[in-house]
Amino acid sequence: MKKVLIDCDPGIDDALALALAAGSADSLDLVGVTTVGGNVDLELTTANALALRDFLQLGDVPVTPGSAGALLRRTVRATVHGTTGLGDVVLPVPARGPSEGHAVDFIVETLKAAPGEITLVAVGPLSNVALAVRREPRVVEWARDLVIMGGSYTRGNHNPAAEFNMLADPEAAAIVFEAGWTVTMLGLDVTLKAVVNSAVLDRMRPLGRLADLLVPAAQFYGTVTAEGGPAIHDACAVAYVLDPALFTCVPAVVNVETAGEFTRGMTVTDFKVAGREPNALVATAVDVPAFWDLVIGAYEKLATRLG
Amino acid sequence: MKKVLIDCDPGIDDALALALAAGSADSLDLVGVTTVGGNVDLELTTANALALRDFLQLGDVPVTPGSAGALLRRTVRATVHGTTGLGDVVLPVPARGPSEGHAVDFIVETLKAAPGEITLVAVGPLSNVALAVRREPRVVEWARDLVIMGGSYTRGNHNPAAEFNMLADPEAAAIVFEAGWTVTMLGLDVTLKAVVNSAVLDRMRPLGRLADLLVPAAQFYGTVTAEGGPAIHDACAVAYVLDPALFTCVPAVVNVETAGEFTRGMTVTDFKVAGREPNALVATAVDVPAFWDLVIGAYEKLATRLG
Amino acid sequence: MKKVLIDCDPGIDDALALALAAGSADSLDLVGVTTVGGNVDLELTTANALALRDFLQLGDVPVTPGSAGALLRRTVRATVHGTTGLGDVVLPVPARGPSEGHAVDFIVETLKAAPGEITLVAVGPLSNVALAVRREPRVVEWARDLVIMGGSYTRGNHNPAAEFNMLADPEAAAIVFEAGWTVTMLGLDVTLKAVVNSAVLDRMRPLGRLADLLVPAAQFYGTVTAEGGPAIHDACAVAYVLDPALFTCVPAVVNVETAGEFTRGMTVTDFKVAGREPNALVATAVDVPAFWDLVIGAYEKLATRLG
Amino acid sequence: MKKVLIDCDPGIDDALALALAAGSADSLDLVGVTTVGGNVDLELTTANALALRDFLQLGDVPVTPGSAGALLRRTVRATVHGTTGLGDVVLPVPARGPSEGHAVDFIVETLKAAPGEITLVAVGPLSNVALAVRREPRVVEWARDLVIMGGSYTRGNHNPAAEFNMLADPEAAAIVFEAGWTVTMLGLDVTLKAVVNSAVLDRMRPLGRLADLLVPAAQFYGTVTAEGGPAIHDACAVAYVLDPALFTCVPAVVNVETAGEFTRGMTVTDFKVAGREPNALVATAVDVPAFWDLVIGAYEKLATRLG
Repeated sequence: MKKVLIDCDPGIDDALALALAAGSADSLDLVGVTTVGGNVDLELTTANALALRDFLQLGDVPVTPGSAGALLRRTVRATVHGTTGLGDVVLPVPARGPSEGHAVDFIVETLKAAPGEITLVAVGPLSNVALAVRREPRVVEWARDLVIMGGSYTRGNHNPAAEFNMLADPEAAAIVFEAGWTVTMLGLDVTLKAVVNSAVLDRMRPLGRLADLLVPAAQFYGTVTAEGGPAIHDACAVAYVLDPALFTCVPAVVNVETAGEFTRGMTVTDFKVAGREPNALVATAVDVPAFWDLVIGAYEKLATRLG
Repeated sequence: MKKVLIDCDPGIDDALALALAAGSADSLDLVGVTTVGGNVDLELTTANALALRDFLQLGDVPVTPGSAGALLRRTVRATVHGTTGLGDVVLPVPARGPSEGHAVDFIVETLKAAPGEITLVAVGPLSNVALAVRREPRVVEWARDLVIMGGSYTRGNHNPAAEFNMLADPEAAAIVFEAGWTVTMLGLDVTLKAVVNSAVLDRMRPLGRLADLLVPAAQFYGTVTAEGGPAIHDACAVAYVLDPALFTCVPAVVNVETAGEFTRGMTVTDFKVAGREPNALVATAVDVPAFWDLVIGAYEKLATRLG
Repeated sequence: MKKVLIDCDPGIDDALALALAAGSADSLDLVGVTTVGGNVDLELTTANALALRDFLQLGDVPVTPGSAGALLRRTVRATVHGTTGLGDVVLPVPARGPSEGHAVDFIVETLKAAPGEITLVAVGPLSNVALAVRREPRVVEWARDLVIMGGSYTRGNHNPAAEFNMLADPEAAAIVFEAGWTVTMLGLDVTLKAVVNSAVLDRMRPLGRLADLLVPAAQFYGTVTAEGGPAIHDACAVAYVLDPALFTCVPAVVNVETAGEFTRGMTVTDFKVAGREPNALVATAVDVPAFWDLVIGAYEKLATRLG
Repeated sequence: MKKVLIDCDPGIDDALALALAAGSADSLDLVGVTTVGGNVDLELTTANALALRDFLQLGDVPVTPGSAGALLRRTVRATVHGTTGLGDVVLPVPARGPSEGHAVDFIVETLKAAPGEITLVAVGPLSNVALAVRREPRVVEWARDLVIMGGSYTRGNHNPAAEFNMLADPEAAAIVFEAGWTVTMLGLDVTLKAVVNSAVLDRMRPLGRLADLLVPAAQFYGTVTAEGGPAIHDACAVAYVLDPALFTCVPAVVNVETAGEFTRGMTVTDFKVAGREPNALVATAVDVPAFWDLVIGAYEKLATRLG
């Protein structure tokens, strides 16, 4: 069983990532969900996480809200998730509220309680993770691994240079990449390769109640980001934890630009690491068929549970 | 009784500020001391705070360590406090260690427990205060006031543009000034006016054991910063809490430069606030004789206690 | 006879600087006037320079237009010179047009033709001077001296950090200060001390036709910049050439900030030059009575000529 | 006949670009060569251009030196061209020196004399072109076209973000891209696709005296930049002028980053130009076989002439 703590900002693809975790319960132990302002405001990302906990039958997994915005000035919001953050999907009102306390403390305390055991999966802006690092630098040692969805070495999405999660809090990203651990970075370079094309959609449609989430989510998302269908970025990070072999990862030195006029939030990636300590493992390729087999397989298990 | 929480990085002038607080026990209730890396490393600022707690007979005031360095990349250290942070002064080894927990949590919890009552006095880099603001934005409402020693509207000290505390963590300073409260800023503009000249030194010399701290501290400090004697910057912030009338303070909009090549950490101060909400009260003048009367008076009371 | 080439952007105070040069014809040989976009657009600064050549009876002094805007992106215009650049003053339409060619070439060729003889006096944005330096680095050797009105070590005027001429083209200013010569910098630190108070205005009023320029110009300017009357910044640079002893000048290392968010165009001035080569002589004080005696004396001579 | 003015910094690939021009004399009229500091210092780039003029029998084409370095501070030099700038190649000492005057003036005057006729081909840092634009903004109208080798929308070479020519003078590049013309940009995206592989090298070897330049140049260059052989970047710009159909070019908005910590000199390229005026035509693909046919064909013609 791999223990994971997911920091997220649902967000359509966050929802599909949580669904992947829910469907992988036999190999993945989700020890907590923390939320951050990102795709939409913190109130919405938290509400969505709570609704998803119920809908996906995640049990008692604590959901703890964290940072509302970036460490420094500017707040950037995505536009591709609709006003609620889940596109056209309407989930039942959650029965339970969030946990007491703050995501940063939850991250620190949870990692501290099981050093070396828990993989931190961060699929939103890195505000919570950065604050945790600064609040307690030893989280870097306590985390088994840090896997993020974010950045890119070839392009941006929110603008030509920057991927959304990095742009939304460049200083946080800089803190996280400089913290001393090796960040596994699943960026647009790979996430945009695993798109929900019509064949994938056909495999989602028969999934009963779960399909009511997956299909409209993918379709809503697809209207804005699609090239042959939408990517479900955040699910890649969970998929990596489930099976790292799906991805080719290359050591690199990643610097996050915080000062540029046109390049704030860019993950400047140098694969020439000779003589330097890499601070990242950057995914450069994904086995797309195997990725979808893993994801759809998990969704099918979950669908059976959900009915 | 005014309640204060002092966030500091002792540091010679921090020591003299704590001594001022200790000598003002009849009007000042010191609810806690938190430490931050700044003048010297966090280990030393914490050790010095602990030694000062004993030496100054501050009783059970909790001393809680916080951030070791700046939020973002660079670490800057002062050079004027000697290798220990207290110049030539050697204090007895402290009998007790620091409190459990982290300065950021201590600040958040302490302010939360007594909303509107406690003045936060920050005389080091603003790393802890910024993290507290990001960790729990309501500290801005809970604090009775925020009084800092730092910045300047006319000059720097560490370089021509920036004062040391601001330069040591410009991003933290930017967060703090943009947090929504009114920062009372006692900068070099006033602190450099209240110097320990020979007349002041003569008033310190008869103070028994306390003089063993004050006199060599001032003299050590004076060798490097003096123009007619050293300033004791941090004590100005405590003096302001004790008697705001000592200082002339003017509303201003203060922006902290984080991007400049030669101006990082500069507190760009605009006194033309027409049509804008000031975010700072900036001290522009100090009644020097009254300042020293207050400070020496407090030191005399303390000296009587210390023997 | 001191030879000077004046690069300017008239501009009210530019007009008064040219009038000072015109009234000092017995000791100053004005070899050329070049214009730059600054206080107002280049078309207007050139038209004003041409009108002033006639009005001030500057003879055949060539007037050559140069750069319309800053080297890099932003164009900044002053607002205190009115829409024409000369406030309420209306001068006769000039009889002659500008010289062929470009200011940058004129500067290069003129300095080249008399190496070591000509002082370049630049009282607008430094766009032309910077381009001349880059076009022909030897102008740095050929110039007898470079005297500028611009910058400050204590404050800005256009914003809290930057003086207008520097802000209008920070990259040009950076080029000029790094070019290898010693820039004599008459900044706001001194120019704001020599204001046209009522006593000075009383000495201007009897000056016949010249008073028709000086008095309304000063009054117009005064409505916006005055504290006890307007400064006539640019005239300080010409006054310095006429009598350097009017000013106290101190060696310094000046760096022009080009990257700051709040500090672009700031002349970061370090008077601690130990072990470094100063690149500037920065004026720190002015003998105000002697300054006005010199200026008014020259105006009186000119008034006699003009009738 | 297409008229071209080549601004360059030979540099190995500059040499091969000039050779391509020389071999295309039946369709290309080379009206001038200007030099800039770049790959190596200006003295060397000029000396190399002069030597190449003789060796390539370019006749009376004027060679005019220009800017020694970047507009602003930093000087960056390439390391892949050897100490002379031409690798191991040693050309005969040139019989004639450079033209009088400065590259910037030459560019301005030459374009002015034949408005709409001359294509400016810039294959080094854009210092000269930027100064020409600022010295005489009408060059933008007078140039038939501006074709540069430089930049990239996918990667850098000197560092992960920036291509060398852009990095060597980012401010100049920003000026040029913002000047109002449409810059045809042949960047690393295409130049790295047309490499001198062994088949190409085999076609160069029989070219007599010319082979003495081409082969060792390519081999020297290849040792450092090769992936299947070296690119000859600058030749792409000349090839584009000869036959634009070799390249796929896409309208884009290109912004040059001047402020980043890790991204200075990056050409941030946005192909989403809806509602904006593109300022660039960016090459995205090259017909490699056709490219080499054109280049080798020209070299063969030249080789026949040179013997």
